[in-house]
Amino acid sequence: MLNEAITRYQQRVDGQLRHFINAQDDTEPQLKAAMEHGALIGGKRIRPFLVYAVGEMLGVPLERLDACAAAIECIHAYSLIHDDLPAMDDDALRRGQPTVHIAFNEATAILAGDALQTLAFEIISQEGGELSASQQLAMVRALAKASGYSGMCGGQAMDLNATDRQIDLETLKRLHRLKTGALIRCAVELPIIAAKVTDEQASHLLTFADAIGLAFQVQDDVLDIIASTEELGKPQGSDCESNKSTYPKLLGLSGAQATAKSLIEDALSALAKLPYNSQLIAEFARFIIERRV
Amino acid sequence: MLNEAITRYQQRVDGQLRHFINAQDDTEPQLKAAMEHGALIGGKRIRPFLVYAVGEMLGVPLERLDACAAAIECIHAYSLIHDDLPAMDDDALRRGQPTVHIAFNEATAILAGDALQTLAFEIISQEGGELSASQQLAMVRALAKASGYSGMCGGQAMDLNATDRQIDLETLKRLHRLKTGALIRCAVELPIIAAKVTDEQASHLLTFADAIGLAFQVQDDVLDIIASTEELGKPQGSDCESNKSTYPKLLGLSGAQATAKSLIEDALSALAKLPYNSQLIAEFARFIIERRV
Repeated sequence: MLNEAITRYQQRVDGQLRHFINAQDDTEPQLKAAMEHGALIGGKRIRPFLVYAVGEMLGVPLERLDACAAAIECIHAYSLIHDDLPAMDDDALRRGQPTVHIAFNEATAILAGDALQTLAFEIISQEGGELSASQQLAMVRALAKASGYSGMCGGQAMDLNATDRQIDLETLKRLHRLKTGALIRCAVELPIIAAKVTDEQASHLLTFADAIGLAFQVQDDVLDIIASTEELGKPQGSDCESNKSTYPKLLGLSGAQATAKSLIEDALSALAKLPYNSQLIAEFARFIIERRV
Repeated sequence: MLNEAITRYQQRVDGQLRHFINAQDDTEPQLKAAMEHGALIGGKRIRPFLVYAVGEMLGVPLERLDACAAAIECIHAYSLIHDDLPAMDDDALRRGQPTVHIAFNEATAILAGDALQTLAFEIISQEGGELSASQQLAMVRALAKASGYSGMCGGQAMDLNATDRQIDLETLKRLHRLKTGALIRCAVELPIIAAKVTDEQASHLLTFADAIGLAFQVQDDVLDIIASTEELGKPQGSDCESNKSTYPKLLGLSGAQATAKSLIEDALSALAKLPYNSQLIAEFARFIIERRV
């Protein structure tokens, strides 16, 4: 069930992204191609998956979720393009393909990232959907909060400052809550805004989101140790080499694995409190710590 | 009257920007300082001036314009930070002060620009103001449209591609309509959204905005030729040296000056059709071609 849903939502959001990028005029073909390269380089589409899967669980038609799913992926894609830049992580490959500044050039990569961030807000505020203006505005607000200084950008700054320094577990958790957790939480907040749920239900869903967001990062660190270069599409152990603090470094490999497992248990017990059929997203939560890539 | 208004609005928007940036928590002091450096490095505050002056002319209280004025300046500030990067225009000085990547470092400059863009959308969508949700949403939409691929970002991409190439007058106009014109137009659109005006009045105001937007750029090119290094705070004629197409290159110095003058005449006749006291913004339009910096 999970694999079928992942593929279905992946294809759906890729179609949306292609649609929104191709809807732009053709005056700057290189910038447009760079945006498309960055947004459609592939990947698991975790955030759109959550938007769609949580939304469907809450009874929201998929058509009302397309804009959110595409917008949040634009934010994620822009952050990867900028993270890969020489002044940041300096990565030439992502998912086995050349990163945007390699495939194009640095200036184009900066602009493509900038324009994808803007596109996210353009998509989420577009006219003609079935959401009310206050729902759309609440979505803009949630997406901005999750992406900016108090979210993803702040986390990326913490991450850069933490390189070559030993940080403690609390700081590492905070770093990941901002760097990747905020946007994963937002991927659950957006369908909550689109649906009608009680405050209590929303709170269980956000507990779920926070737990899987952190587990996802812990598992990324674990995989970075155990997976081969070929499987990940980037040099094995590259985070270790660059002297970044990771969960396995602070807790040992089995300590990190136990942490990820316990986070997923928290996520599952939050789900169990909901009066919805949460089978698909529970399966997804388990997949986070079982995946090999 | 104009100088007093410029100073008053400048101080007002600077206070707003300081407020919104300082309202962020202190966990990433370097990123926060870089955002503040980029947003408060000074400048004429043309866009906030237009938001406030057009808004006041239309009878909108200043408090309802603060968020728009700060948000549009965040977008402008982020674009300057990214434009100054080594991979883009590679400028070490702006307004006589070190640019953000010089005062901090390149990675911080990229992130500060990214976070200022997000902050713009956070500010303009914030709760608790007196605008309706549909007004705020329309503002998000206008700001996103003006900033992204079909606006400022696309214009910047055109500009980079036009370096070391001869482009014709139509292409140069289009470049500037996107690169600087779109955001100046948006600075007039935002107060229109906050006010109640007829479609016809809105159309005259936007004609005004487009004309002064282009005139501003023509005059910038003119000043680049005639002003001294000291006055501009950057090396004289730097756009010429880098083989960028400019109005004086295509039209000659006096041809470019005549174009700027004629654009301002268009702007003034659009204003004359409005049933409002447009004295201040008319004075501002004349100032655009009379300024020396």
